[in-house]
Amino acid sequence: MDGDNRPDIGQDSLALHAAHSGKLEIRSKVPLSSRDDLSRAYTPGVAEVCRRIADDPDTVWKYTLKSNTIAIVSDGTAVLGLGNIGPFAGIPVMEGKAILFKEFAGVDAFPICLDAKSEDIVRIIRSLAPVFGGINLEDIAAPACFEIEEELQDLGIPVMHDDQHGAAVAVLAAIINACKVTEKRFEDLRVVVCGAGAAGYAVCRLLKCIGYDTQSCTPVRELIACDTSGIIYRGRPGLYKNKYKFILGDETNSMHRIGTLADAMKGADVFVGVSVANLVTEEMIRAMGSDPIVLSLANPVPEIMPDKARAAGAAIVGTGRSDYPNQVNNVLAFPGIFRGALDARATRITDEMKIAAAHAIAECVRNPTSEKILPDPLDRGVVTAVALAVKQAAISGGVARDM
Amino acid sequence: MDGDNRPDIGQDSLALHAAHSGKLEIRSKVPLSSRDDLSRAYTPGVAEVCRRIADDPDTVWKYTLKSNTIAIVSDGTAVLGLGNIGPFAGIPVMEGKAILFKEFAGVDAFPICLDAKSEDIVRIIRSLAPVFGGINLEDIAAPACFEIEEELQDLGIPVMHDDQHGAAVAVLAAIINACKVTEKRFEDLRVVVCGAGAAGYAVCRLLKCIGYDTQSCTPVRELIACDTSGIIYRGRPGLYKNKYKFILGDETNSMHRIGTLADAMKGADVFVGVSVANLVTEEMIRAMGSDPIVLSLANPVPEIMPDKARAAGAAIVGTGRSDYPNQVNNVLAFPGIFRGALDARATRITDEMKIAAAHAIAECVRNPTSEKILPDPLDRGVVTAVALAVKQAAISGGVARDM
Repeated sequence: MDGDNRPDIGQDSLALHAAHSGKLEIRSKVPLSSRDDLSRAYTPGVAEVCRRIADDPDTVWKYTLKSNTIAIVSDGTAVLGLGNIGPFAGIPVMEGKAILFKEFAGVDAFPICLDAKSEDIVRIIRSLAPVFGGINLEDIAAPACFEIEEELQDLGIPVMHDDQHGAAVAVLAAIINACKVTEKRFEDLRVVVCGAGAAGYAVCRLLKCIGYDTQSCTPVRELIACDTSGIIYRGRPGLYKNKYKFILGDETNSMHRIGTLADAMKGADVFVGVSVANLVTEEMIRAMGSDPIVLSLANPVPEIMPDKARAAGAAIVGTGRSDYPNQVNNVLAFPGIFRGALDARATRITDEMKIAAAHAIAECVRNPTSEKILPDPLDRGVVTAVALAVKQAAISGGVARDM
Repeated sequence: MDGDNRPDIGQDSLALHAAHSGKLEIRSKVPLSSRDDLSRAYTPGVAEVCRRIADDPDTVWKYTLKSNTIAIVSDGTAVLGLGNIGPFAGIPVMEGKAILFKEFAGVDAFPICLDAKSEDIVRIIRSLAPVFGGINLEDIAAPACFEIEEELQDLGIPVMHDDQHGAAVAVLAAIINACKVTEKRFEDLRVVVCGAGAAGYAVCRLLKCIGYDTQSCTPVRELIACDTSGIIYRGRPGLYKNKYKFILGDETNSMHRIGTLADAMKGADVFVGVSVANLVTEEMIRAMGSDPIVLSLANPVPEIMPDKARAAGAAIVGTGRSDYPNQVNNVLAFPGIFRGALDARATRITDEMKIAAAHAIAECVRNPTSEKILPDPLDRGVVTAVALAVKQAAISGGVARDM
């Protein structure tokens, strides 16, 4: 959805938000016009529904909003590119995400913007969980986002930090199809990931299958992650201070390369940028291997603009923007992933489900070309395909609830 | 809404809930069909809205759902007459309440069913508050409900436990009009309240102005509260164990009467029952003063059935049921109270606002009769009148936010 850079879009957006006082409303799905309607929807009839759930807690999925409702939980510590703007200023993003969930996937999503310390968020989410069928963590700063997601995997409903996995799934789908176009083999790829925050870490994990205990995960041959200090390598001074960068040092960069981003990119097949604007020069692209794949996803201004990347020899260029070809956007992933997880009444979102989502997205493009490695984010067929693949992966993975 | 006692209503209700998987949905109020729509509602346009709120936090009321959205918060410890059935089994009631809020008052209300210890609820609600313009506490057992509500009065948005104040406001409205019909003076009334839980305590407080620091509260002459141990009086053994009953002992029963409910009712003008079925006999009604007013609100079966009460000489009988005249139902109160509070962007719900609500409800009946002391709960004019009165009381009481 990003990348529309009309100068007046911000003003348009302010006017839209003021006109409607936000974007969400909560409505009844049942009729409420007669006394009889009320007796069924509320007291006294509702008492029987309460009793049934008290007797058999699993029926909460049958009789309540839980089966189709997720929370979008944020503490506002890493909102868009705006940083730690807090839970109030984060609300418009969470509302926006909620309406995308409904529009694309029919999922009812409610924004929960927490004024809380990160060490309290796990406990708060556990308390909130009864009414929700899933939790989409959003715009929570690293490394708290990793810890919160990890700790909540036993909650009994899917908990996914979209900034990590939505991005990683979309990137994997893009690379799968980019390989078809450039006739590269996925398992031979040498990849550089620039940025080791939420999205960067998840991209590295998925491309190198770090911590993925599934046969369906294929690792690329070589992956080098870079952060603001350059290449991440085992033993880099201070690396142990951040558990997640320490893991990257351990599990990537098997050649133990040391240096700058430019050093890392020499000879690489794929560049994935999830960092900040204008970090990459044409020279750095020219130093990559043959027919390089450049996914330059910093928003709104990418690490290198597509025209420059193409001029420097990139075979395929993707960005996060809607005004260039190959928009790599997590809206391709998250609506279908949660739709599929809810349809399966999944207890969690497994690695298989994420990988299945990536392949389903890739397969939505029949004949990938350098100008079209991904489906259009507005293509409504994508969510259906992703949801089905995710649901099947949940069932075959044994995390679907009996219905 | 209570009191429809068709034997199959429970089955109807189960079928309705299963057919729709609950009763709520969350929808977009803004268009989402084009790329431009998405750019305004989500990224990149939304970033400007976030920035604006970060710069000026008060604009959260202008640009987000906060201005029209409340949470219905319950821990499921006192759901309907079903007791402590837990947060899962309580969901259908909270969903039902949410759709009443929307249907009657246009308020967007979301059910938050907490799996939490009562001592953690205050902190959780504080964390949740950014996205909400008000908090309706619901179906939380006494005495935790009193403490939670008290502690949250500094939150900056209205926090009201409806089981207390919704009930008390409806009772006050009923008594105001019952006085007109029976030509009694409110300030001369001798009242017996049976039940000292959430509703009973709030009824006592409002009728005796206990803790009400406003000129607009008129106390009745004498009030006696009864619980399962009979009349509550100062110095009753063990009373000090419950802070709220201790307060009732101090502030009611100025004649220091001791005895049973039957003793309390002798010579009384008004009986308010918020307890359990069939506690009151015809003899007890006959022992009341002249033209007694009997509000027998236990649900679904009242303390005494209306026909018996009338036969025993009650001038006016009200119940919680829709199948008898004079339904005393908090749906008369809560939608308009929160509508008015939100319209004023009130920082809290003051005593004046509750009293204003009661008078507004009473005034909805032009010519009260023994068969009609209250407006019909389905009468949409009530919420408009209550909301206006509550908003005005918020403004004159200095708790309305500048807009």
